[in-house]
Amino acid sequence: MAAPGAEPFTVSAYAAPSEGSPLAPTTIERRAVGPKDILIEIQYAGICHSDIHTVRGHWGPQTYPLVVGHEIAGVVTRIGAKVTRHRVGDRVGVGCMVNSCRTCANCRQGLEQYCLNGNVLTYGSKDRDGTITQGGYSTHVVVDEDFVLRIPKSIPLEKAAPILCAGITTYSPLRHWKAGRGKKVAINGLGGLGHMAVQIARVLGAEVTVLSRTPGKERDARRFGADHFHLTSEAAATDELANTFDLVVNTAPEAVDLNRLMPMLTLDGVWVNVGAFSEPMPISVFMTFANRLSFAGSAIGGIAETQEVLDFCARHGIAPEVEVISADQINTAYTKVVAAEARYRYVIDTTTISSPRA
Amino acid sequence: MAAPGAEPFTVSAYAAPSEGSPLAPTTIERRAVGPKDILIEIQYAGICHSDIHTVRGHWGPQTYPLVVGHEIAGVVTRIGAKVTRHRVGDRVGVGCMVNSCRTCANCRQGLEQYCLNGNVLTYGSKDRDGTITQGGYSTHVVVDEDFVLRIPKSIPLEKAAPILCAGITTYSPLRHWKAGRGKKVAINGLGGLGHMAVQIARVLGAEVTVLSRTPGKERDARRFGADHFHLTSEAAATDELANTFDLVVNTAPEAVDLNRLMPMLTLDGVWVNVGAFSEPMPISVFMTFANRLSFAGSAIGGIAETQEVLDFCARHGIAPEVEVISADQINTAYTKVVAAEARYRYVIDTTTISSPRA
Repeated sequence: MAAPGAEPFTVSAYAAPSEGSPLAPTTIERRAVGPKDILIEIQYAGICHSDIHTVRGHWGPQTYPLVVGHEIAGVVTRIGAKVTRHRVGDRVGVGCMVNSCRTCANCRQGLEQYCLNGNVLTYGSKDRDGTITQGGYSTHVVVDEDFVLRIPKSIPLEKAAPILCAGITTYSPLRHWKAGRGKKVAINGLGGLGHMAVQIARVLGAEVTVLSRTPGKERDARRFGADHFHLTSEAAATDELANTFDLVVNTAPEAVDLNRLMPMLTLDGVWVNVGAFSEPMPISVFMTFANRLSFAGSAIGGIAETQEVLDFCARHGIAPEVEVISADQINTAYTKVVAAEARYRYVIDTTTISSPRA
Repeated sequence: MAAPGAEPFTVSAYAAPSEGSPLAPTTIERRAVGPKDILIEIQYAGICHSDIHTVRGHWGPQTYPLVVGHEIAGVVTRIGAKVTRHRVGDRVGVGCMVNSCRTCANCRQGLEQYCLNGNVLTYGSKDRDGTITQGGYSTHVVVDEDFVLRIPKSIPLEKAAPILCAGITTYSPLRHWKAGRGKKVAINGLGGLGHMAVQIARVLGAEVTVLSRTPGKERDARRFGADHFHLTSEAAATDELANTFDLVVNTAPEAVDLNRLMPMLTLDGVWVNVGAFSEPMPISVFMTFANRLSFAGSAIGGIAETQEVLDFCARHGIAPEVEVISADQINTAYTKVVAAEARYRYVIDTTTISSPRA
């Protein structure tokens, strides 16, 4: 089809029809390409655990049908009259945000992820025009050019997609808390986020340990560059690691026992949570009193930093390990993600949404 | 009496005979003054909420009878043969610790409060010789000279005592997290710790807000130097303060609703807990994701830093507000501390222990 976009247009998508139901093919409306908008023909969309939490209502009620997906990679097929940052034919990506207020103190620092007036998330979020945003499990999306990232040539699009959430979400705290030479960094959980975190922390020069509940992941952990691997399932094992790490990036998508695990940190150590889940975790002040420990949260990263991690991955030749699936495999993939069986990121070939494979 | 100390000796004290019972006069044994020891004739001992938690078994079983008190001020009456730091007649103090391993990475940095081999607390702790330490509600104490602080001349001994816990416990995190000019600092809770924190933060140059559940404390808050005062009892009030503070020092001696209160912090804001209590607090990762917030714990301070805060208070003319009581008023004072009625620190005149007032 000729590139649409002069008027609002209908595109194919895979949506959750309601909170409890599996995803199914449907069509959704995309807005007309405005003066500062980019129309992207999506080629790949990664599956993030957050997609599953969201469509299943774990984070509160949603408006259905809902199309999720915030690891989007594709090609520009139309640009608005005032667009300056991207051209037709460019390989581009969209992550977790599609807009922010741009005027608050945090936005002005390039920290749109912490927009004080509420940024517009890529799906399930109220857009400036009052509609609910629809994500990347779709053939096309229209996004303001300022929230569209350039994908370096050396990164295949299917591998670029997960960098836009899993990559930036781990890169940002590793940089912020200065993972690097002389630092002992642990990555808790070796999944979509964790396997990116290991590669990034290693390139940054840190001594990297993978903490996991799954003995079978040691081989992969070392392949991604981990210097050490430890199981966290037994208290004896984590007790032995007391006072070891400067930084733990916790990528687990569910509550963990902070009072048992945080003491693995050394003086002024920081436990930073990047996995999103709604259950609160009990934290003991006595536990934090030993070694003056901190618990922190870090959410994705700003747009400039997202560009930075894409360029960083290209420069250092690191990328997520992906399994490309067709749209009709999404529900099966969800089951595997929940069972922690992804190795390490499912990425949907979104061209299979409008033209199902035989 | 002539200064004892050549042999182990018996001194008067106020002790908890058992977990549930009120404190009562008794006698305890002090060790002979060793080559590096100082014998202190105690004149004042502050009452800290931790004393109450400890004797009542809130933090686990204790060995009874137990003498608490870790805000100790007095005069040197005997020194060991190899003592170099203090002389007979010196005005000195002892805080929460009386020894540490001195060899671990933290001790070598002067952070004996984070001793990795377990420091020896002033009371209820196993001493190097296997005995259980007994605190300051007593007439005399024998302490290694390295854990004895000099009290500057301008600070009356009864006002010096609380600096050794309440002062250092708030000074250390205010310095560590760089409270100072251009920073908005909130002190949650205006009690023994809080009223020191306000004075210290103000001298450091921060814009200081007191957060409290007690409307009647506004006047005092401003007298201690607070620029602002806000009640935290209503969610509407704390919601209005969203995104305001760079640092909150929480001095409350019991669990608070972190998920409602921490959002008062601004970008990269730190909530640091200095009050000690055993109930864990539920913390939400989503809450920390807004503004990349941190929750931290800070325990007292090192010995060098404790000397620093004493000198700081002397130099800037700040001091705790104390009410001196006799030993027979300790149990009544405990009731008032628990009811948050202390204004702002009860200090025992320990000379009334051996010679009760008529």
